[in-house]
Amino acid sequence: MLILYYAPHTCALAPHIALEDAGANYQTVRIDFAAQEQRQGDYLAVNPKGRVPSLATERGVLTETPAILAFIAQTFPAAELAPLTDPYAFAEVQAFNSYLCATVHVAHAHRMRGSRWADDGATIAGMKRAVPRAVGGGFELIETSLLKGPWVMGEAYTVCDPYLFTLSQWLEADGVDLLRFPRVFDHRARMAGRPQVQRAIAAELA
Amino acid sequence: MLILYYAPHTCALAPHIALEDAGANYQTVRIDFAAQEQRQGDYLAVNPKGRVPSLATERGVLTETPAILAFIAQTFPAAELAPLTDPYAFAEVQAFNSYLCATVHVAHAHRMRGSRWADDGATIAGMKRAVPRAVGGGFELIETSLLKGPWVMGEAYTVCDPYLFTLSQWLEADGVDLLRFPRVFDHRARMAGRPQVQRAIAAELA
Repeated sequence: MLILYYAPHTCALAPHIALEDAGANYQTVRIDFAAQEQRQGDYLAVNPKGRVPSLATERGVLTETPAILAFIAQTFPAAELAPLTDPYAFAEVQAFNSYLCATVHVAHAHRMRGSRWADDGATIAGMKRAVPRAVGGGFELIETSLLKGPWVMGEAYTVCDPYLFTLSQWLEADGVDLLRFPRVFDHRARMAGRPQVQRAIAAELA
Repeated sequence: MLILYYAPHTCALAPHIALEDAGANYQTVRIDFAAQEQRQGDYLAVNPKGRVPSLATERGVLTETPAILAFIAQTFPAAELAPLTDPYAFAEVQAFNSYLCATVHVAHAHRMRGSRWADDGATIAGMKRAVPRAVGGGFELIETSLLKGPWVMGEAYTVCDPYLFTLSQWLEADGVDLLRFPRVFDHRARMAGRPQVQRAIAAELA
């Protein structure tokens, strides 16, 4: 039995949707960020990074969204969530997800998690001011170059799609005008209509 | 023929070493960061992100170090650079490389690339001050939890090893005392003795 550790409104939504897409048998455990539960011993024993998502498997605990998404795709091949037998196409999936993880999510994190990279309030405030520009730049590249359409990788739905959807949920709060990115907006709307997405969101907020 | 676009002293060293480990037939193209060549049209046509590494293949161009490393491992299976037939073990490799990419490298980048996340000099200076703490925290987790030893994933050398080696090269310049991390230090020394590593570094600096 897989167990997904998550908190609402985090990138853990991406693997949550992917587990629904895969038809996986899984449970979820909610970590209370308001109570700093992610930094307490019980959860640090699961994931010493003190972050979500974590995916507990019968072999051990996996972390890092791109790795968890690829694992779900490989573990449930019948769901066809990645081009598993084509190393080049698989690397394209990995590259997109790595860009979301290391560039887009990182740019977003400068709004709420500035203390990772600064020790004083003035610097943290300065980083927050640049978030709309930094996040907007990431989505500009997605809009113009990376999103093939209709799905991220073209005709085939992959684990890139729930990850893009998850990060695109944060655009308004990051101060980015979503109307600048009509293709991302269209993608988000189509994703929001999928029953798998609706089930994952409903479960998170229940 | 694979073509690796690189600049010296960047994370492009990791796939460069992996190509040597794989015994691949490849060429390299050096991008002159001092002349801002990565932001000019010729290179942006290769990689619109304006970063290195990029790996040109006969199918197209791949970006993002974790994706390129996994592609090299999958394309040259005889080199046994990743546990390709075990989704859980492969996900562990991916998770380690994602942590290097999205946490450790990102922490390091706040020293030289602060303008990605701030628009004013005071904020950029404030971020630089926190780099030893942020990078040191990333390596603390590697030292105590992630590096299994003797290689990152245990007895088997994988594409995690050239990536860790590459980022550990930056510790002194980031103001982190490498003596805090004896297991990382030992790993770095063993990597530095490998002829594949020596060939890649010599080629970069030639």
